[in-house]
Amino acid sequence: MFSKFQNHIVSRFPFLENQKIFLAVSGGLDSMVLLHLLKQLPYEIAVLHCNFQLRGLESFGDQNFIQEYCDQNNIPIYTTQFDTDAFAKDYKLSTQVAARELRYSWFYELLETKNFDYILTAHHADDNLETFIINLTRGTGLEGLIGIPEQNDRIIRPLLPFSREEIFKYAEDNNIEWREDSSNASNKYLRNKIRHDLVPMLKEINPNFLNAFQKTQSYLQESQAMVEDASIMIYQQVAKEEGDDIHFDLNQLKKLPNYKSYLYQWLNEFGFLAWNDIYDLVDGQSGKQVLSSEFRLLKNRNILILSPISEMSEKEEFEINANDTEVNFPLKLKLCNVSHITIDSNKAIFVDAEKIQFPLVLRKWKEGDVFYPFGMEGKSKKVSKLFKDEKLSLIEKEKMWILCSDNQIVWVVGIRQDDRFRIENTTNRILKIELES
Amino acid sequence: MFSKFQNHIVSRFPFLENQKIFLAVSGGLDSMVLLHLLKQLPYEIAVLHCNFQLRGLESFGDQNFIQEYCDQNNIPIYTTQFDTDAFAKDYKLSTQVAARELRYSWFYELLETKNFDYILTAHHADDNLETFIINLTRGTGLEGLIGIPEQNDRIIRPLLPFSREEIFKYAEDNNIEWREDSSNASNKYLRNKIRHDLVPMLKEINPNFLNAFQKTQSYLQESQAMVEDASIMIYQQVAKEEGDDIHFDLNQLKKLPNYKSYLYQWLNEFGFLAWNDIYDLVDGQSGKQVLSSEFRLLKNRNILILSPISEMSEKEEFEINANDTEVNFPLKLKLCNVSHITIDSNKAIFVDAEKIQFPLVLRKWKEGDVFYPFGMEGKSKKVSKLFKDEKLSLIEKEKMWILCSDNQIVWVVGIRQDDRFRIENTTNRILKIELES
Repeated sequence: MFSKFQNHIVSRFPFLENQKIFLAVSGGLDSMVLLHLLKQLPYEIAVLHCNFQLRGLESFGDQNFIQEYCDQNNIPIYTTQFDTDAFAKDYKLSTQVAARELRYSWFYELLETKNFDYILTAHHADDNLETFIINLTRGTGLEGLIGIPEQNDRIIRPLLPFSREEIFKYAEDNNIEWREDSSNASNKYLRNKIRHDLVPMLKEINPNFLNAFQKTQSYLQESQAMVEDASIMIYQQVAKEEGDDIHFDLNQLKKLPNYKSYLYQWLNEFGFLAWNDIYDLVDGQSGKQVLSSEFRLLKNRNILILSPISEMSEKEEFEINANDTEVNFPLKLKLCNVSHITIDSNKAIFVDAEKIQFPLVLRKWKEGDVFYPFGMEGKSKKVSKLFKDEKLSLIEKEKMWILCSDNQIVWVVGIRQDDRFRIENTTNRILKIELES
Repeated sequence: MFSKFQNHIVSRFPFLENQKIFLAVSGGLDSMVLLHLLKQLPYEIAVLHCNFQLRGLESFGDQNFIQEYCDQNNIPIYTTQFDTDAFAKDYKLSTQVAARELRYSWFYELLETKNFDYILTAHHADDNLETFIINLTRGTGLEGLIGIPEQNDRIIRPLLPFSREEIFKYAEDNNIEWREDSSNASNKYLRNKIRHDLVPMLKEINPNFLNAFQKTQSYLQESQAMVEDASIMIYQQVAKEEGDDIHFDLNQLKKLPNYKSYLYQWLNEFGFLAWNDIYDLVDGQSGKQVLSSEFRLLKNRNILILSPISEMSEKEEFEINANDTEVNFPLKLKLCNVSHITIDSNKAIFVDAEKIQFPLVLRKWKEGDVFYPFGMEGKSKKVSKLFKDEKLSLIEKEKMWILCSDNQIVWVVGIRQDDRFRIENTTNRILKIELES
């Protein structure tokens, strides 16, 4: 006869039948119960165990414990070891977040490589409640309150409706062994306080508290889905993707009384922290910007432009030699000798090959750059003035390249040729330089 | 020198300057502090006090206490008394909800009649926290967690950032007197348990808990606003208002994976309770319906139709006399003698005036109604069959009227005339009966 846990699993997830199922097992109470439950069901199962190496020998003890259990019970097992601390440091993550990232990316990798269908984890109702309260004590948004879902994608948490108490009782009744986790003492202290003092008080107020709480979380999950719907619908009205950039139309955006909420939703994932500065941009001066570690948000007239910060050094220079017929980086250029001028456009220039001096140099523009624009009868002009006249945004300006011959500007690439190198009646050899986009 | 409370009020709500401001004062700690704070500020204030008559003499004691305080301090005061229990019973509300309804509707009425600008209430941070926890223990949605806002419309709650402790300290420091409220003992017990046991524990976990919590609530309020945005945007895509009815396009609706959340948002205010039945309607049989006390939700092919349940009795009949030239209720009809048939449409019939017998009677159709449709060569037909052929929805059928002469059907109004009363070669007088829409 099946337990109530097993009945729940079979009826709630009928699609698991005949599927290949991984169980994520740490060796603690919850996952050992999950393993015990599943090995009696007619599924094809295998165990996954991550050793996060956070508790020295204890971590290896857990690993051995599970390995032995699986060997004795003829259950296939895959284990891996992570240097979690190093990963956390490299990516500036908390240990907990680092461990989660490592765990789930390994899970998904194994689903693919071992050709399995689902992963079951042993999260239960009290896990969600404790996380809810922890986040509440710290201050959180809706996302911090909705809890981990019963299923997302191919990860299923079949014990989520059950309390720790019920799981503990099953373990006792069935003589299940498990390993206690001594890790994360400070977080443990907090969880213990919540578990032993706060939660019992809530259950005293309402003996059915855990049920009421699960209903609350399912309502909050519905609300969160609607928040995401709103976010997407407004994004479609307001945002336009241009290459790597995203343009947000401020005239549209500002029609919404709660536009800050939307900016937060959209920009949160790009690592921004200075939210008030971002909100100030909306009514701020054109040209102001806010940076995250990898992205820039620029106010440009009535548009907010989000762009990745180029990793190219401002100082880098790229040489073009006399026998080069093409350049592939940082721009795509084609160079060839021609007998006459063909089509005239900003994308190509024709220069007197005898006036220029190889190697030509491609570099970013800099403040103070001056050149002699073609057609201005030998008058000089600041490149910055040219950009202003062309109404380039800060980001567009940063993307501009200058082609030089012996420190003299030959071409503000894609925009304007210099007068000094243009072909004349006396020109013998014409070099065509063409920008390919 | 102003207190921190007063500084907050002046800087946070600068628009209150030169406005006429009501203070809602119960006589308890919080509102007496609010009154004390406000009477020192250069605003024009008046006090509002509701006597809900829920605690007999004690309620009148509160009223007298405030009346005396205002008289001594030369503050205008308006009081009113409600039979809260009777109101709660009449409208099937909890005492608490009834009191809130009565209070706020009286507040808004006085804003209008006394020509005041704002109402200030004394809610503070712990009120919001306690309500949050109470709702949490009972199971709630996002709306139950967002708390009462600092301002909605013309109601302002300037003490919301402050804790009960801070307010209590101010009262002590300034020798403010107040009345203790002994009411609502069961709710008091719950609030006291939360106030004295649970909240201190949360503050032990994080001494800054109340601040963190306020941040949480402001995030949740933002989320709630976005939920409402989504609800409105999807409504505009899916719903169409037709007279008193609302039609929801199920083909559109079912494209949303979370359409149930939207149905809940839209239909909640119409008093429905049987949510699973409503969700089942979406894929249910055409013709099925779910009722609330005043509304009906009907599945009709690919549409869900929401309509008010007509208060018209099914049995009511309306007579039309020989000299009537028009009928205004329950339908608009025009009757006139004509010399010949003009335009033929379903909206008008021409009958042989000598065949009919006044008073004509307008009544709802009933099961078993039979008539002889015009043009069917004397064959009879059930009215229900006619409706079926015409593909009328249940609601459309319910709106149908029958015009009778001496219990014989003359016209299924707007749809089909009876053959027995049509004009013939022998007709002397033609009566035109026209439906005006």
